[in-house]
Amino acid sequence: MTPTDLDTALMRRAIALARESVASGGGPFGAVVARDGRIVAEGCNRVTVWNDPTAHAEVVAIREACRALASFQLEGCTIYSSCEPCPMCLGALYWARPARLVFACTRDDAAAAGFDDELIYRELALPIEARRLPISTLLRTEGLAAFTDWRAAASRRDY
Amino acid sequence: MTPTDLDTALMRRAIALARESVASGGGPFGAVVARDGRIVAEGCNRVTVWNDPTAHAEVVAIREACRALASFQLEGCTIYSSCEPCPMCLGALYWARPARLVFACTRDDAAAAGFDDELIYRELALPIEARRLPISTLLRTEGLAAFTDWRAAASRRDY
Repeated sequence: MTPTDLDTALMRRAIALARESVASGGGPFGAVVARDGRIVAEGCNRVTVWNDPTAHAEVVAIREACRALASFQLEGCTIYSSCEPCPMCLGALYWARPARLVFACTRDDAAAAGFDDELIYRELALPIEARRLPISTLLRTEGLAAFTDWRAAASRRDY
Repeated sequence: MTPTDLDTALMRRAIALARESVASGGGPFGAVVARDGRIVAEGCNRVTVWNDPTAHAEVVAIREACRALASFQLEGCTIYSSCEPCPMCLGALYWARPARLVFACTRDDAAAAGFDDELIYRELALPIEARRLPISTLLRTEGLAAFTDWRAAASRRDY
């Protein structure tokens, strides 16, 4: 897809947010959510500032955009990120279902700056027993009751 | 790892949270963060209730636990989830760095109930150009300035 002047302007804003984030004590990442050429929400990395390991730029921008649109879906939106999203953020993107993603730096650039997204990508692709994080399972049969409840719920809102 | 009675009790609490979530209009997922045998924080799925696609049980519990501990790391904590985490939640777990994860139902159980975590696992493992989500890149060289700022930042807090 050929980038438009608008794409370029919105990515410059995401990069500016990344630099402002560093200046205000956060990690070097910024993101913008836009629809129909207008910015819906912006975010930057606030992990250490807010004591929130999930406060990556994309997650912050997605949450804020959903609040602004009063929706749990970002239909028709484009997300501009100053860097390739980590697995957490890419997962958040799939759940939010925007129309497209544009990013500037790569996961290798992030790794060179000390952010090991690549390790997490590798871990997610491994079988559970091969991962560094110790993982065990327990009470699956009891747990299935929640899904039984879900299927029967009159108030169910699929997402 | 052999589960302890404490593991069983904490997982039962995570499952109870999943069922309470359905009863209060949310998705069928619950999670508990515990340390030294005590519950630090609890969470359940609030995606449609809060209009927040990132409000999965694990993310809600991790954010709340970090707030309770005033830390962006969950050192020494165990996360109990009523279901195998999706890629977003597993990514969040890696960033939060708990000691271990225990889950009840599997991603296949989630898929059978209509939650397509497996699709997202498959997408993340694909090269960018093969994914369903349209992704493009733009302004990488300009974006690198944020990492240059980061390396030079006196106030930098690694995470």
